[in-house]
Amino acid sequence: MLGETWQDRRRASARGEILAVAWEVARRDGLGGLTLRAVADGVGMRAPSLYTHFASKNALYDAMFGQAWQEFAEAFEAVELPADPRAALHAIARFYVGFATADLVRHQLMDQRVLPDFAPSPESYAPSLRAMERTVARFRALGPAVSDADVDLFVAALGGIVAAQWSNDPGGDRYVRLLGRMVDLLADDLALPRPTEDPPTARPEDPPAPPPEDPPAPPPEELP
Amino acid sequence: MLGETWQDRRRASARGEILAVAWEVARRDGLGGLTLRAVADGVGMRAPSLYTHFASKNALYDAMFGQAWQEFAEAFEAVELPADPRAALHAIARFYVGFATADLVRHQLMDQRVLPDFAPSPESYAPSLRAMERTVARFRALGPAVSDADVDLFVAALGGIVAAQWSNDPGGDRYVRLLGRMVDLLADDLALPRPTEDPPTARPEDPPAPPPEDPPAPPPEELP
Repeated sequence: MLGETWQDRRRASARGEILAVAWEVARRDGLGGLTLRAVADGVGMRAPSLYTHFASKNALYDAMFGQAWQEFAEAFEAVELPADPRAALHAIARFYVGFATADLVRHQLMDQRVLPDFAPSPESYAPSLRAMERTVARFRALGPAVSDADVDLFVAALGGIVAAQWSNDPGGDRYVRLLGRMVDLLADDLALPRPTEDPPTARPEDPPAPPPEDPPAPPPEELP
Repeated sequence: MLGETWQDRRRASARGEILAVAWEVARRDGLGGLTLRAVADGVGMRAPSLYTHFASKNALYDAMFGQAWQEFAEAFEAVELPADPRAALHAIARFYVGFATADLVRHQLMDQRVLPDFAPSPESYAPSLRAMERTVARFRALGPAVSDADVDLFVAALGGIVAAQWSNDPGGDRYVRLLGRMVDLLADDLALPRPTEDPPTARPEDPPAPPPEDPPAPPPEELP
C-alpha cells in the first residue's frame, strides 16, 4: 500500500503468519493451553524472534480477538438483508449462527469468558463495538417497536442455539435446524407480519421427532 | 459410614479438600490454566503426594465434573415443581439458569468445550446423564405434545440466557430478567394454558427500555 514501507509490509506479513499458526495451536491445545513457545515452534521461529512481534501471550490473544471481530464485521456488512422485516430477522440469525458455529475456538475467544485475565485492548475491541452497533441498527430498522429488551432476547436466543449446538452436537445441526422456529417465535412476539404465501415455520413444520438416540457421547447435554 | 475403613474415610476427605482447592485455582487461573502444581501448593501438599490422589490433570477435571453434576442432580431432584405445567416450566427454567449463572467455571466445565482433550469417565458422566434424563422426564410430564424438538428448543433458550448473561453482564441480571418472557414464548408455542388470574409476563410487562448505556465494557456483546 502507498505510504507503507517495505519493512512495514514484511512486519505485517510476519504477524499474519504468526496469527494463522496461533489459531491452529489454539484449536489443537485449547485457548487456555496456547503457549508462545508452541506458536514459535509452529512458525519455525525461535521464541525471542516471536517476542519482537508479540510481547506476551495476551498480546497474541488480543490480535486474534481483533482479527476475528474484524472478519465478522466485514462479513456482516456484506450481507444484504431482504426488505421484509421477518425475512431480514431470519437472515441476521442465519448469518450470526453460521459464523459462530463455524469455528469453536474463534467463538470462545469472541463470545465467552474462557480466559480469566484477558481483556481486549481498545484497538482490538473497536471492531466488535462496530459490529454490535451495526447489528443493533439493522435490528431496530425492522420495526419501530423494537426495544433494547427485544434486542437482548434475540441475542440470547441466537447465542443459545450456538451454545447448545457446540455442547451437544458439534459439527451437526440438531439445534441449528431449530433456528427458524426460534426466530419465528420472536418475530411473532414483535408482531412482524408473516408473508402471506409463506406457511409458518413454527411447530406444524418441525421435522418429526427422531427415533430414540443412542446414549449421547460426552460432554453431556447443555441443559442438565 | 459402615463398611468404610478409617483409611477410606481419610482418603475421601483428602480428595474433597483437594477438589475444593482445585475449584479455587480454576476460578483464579481459568479451567485451562489449572495446574496440579498450583493445586498442590494451594493444599500445602507436595506434588508427589497429590499424585497419589489424582494421577493427572484430567483425573482432577474428571472428579470436578462428576462432583458438579452430582450437585446439580441432587439440587434439581429437591425442586418441587408446581402442578400447573406453565408454572412448572418457569420453575425448571429458573432452577437451571440460577445454577448455571452462579459459578462461571463450574458452568464452563459442565456445559462448554473449554478443554479440548477432556472427556469425562463413565463414572463422572453418569450423574450428568441422570440429571438430563430426569429433566427431560419432568419436561415431558408438562403435556402430551412435548416433542424432542421442543425439549431441544427449551434447552437452547435457557442456555442462551446463561451465555448472554455471562458474556455481557456477568454478575448482573440484564438477560436473566428476560427469562420469564422467553419461557412464556415457549409455553405459548406449546399451547400450555395461561393461568387466568395471572397476567401475561410477555411483552406488555417488560420493563421500560433502559436509558442509553455507557459504552459497554469488554468483553463485547455475545451477539456481534
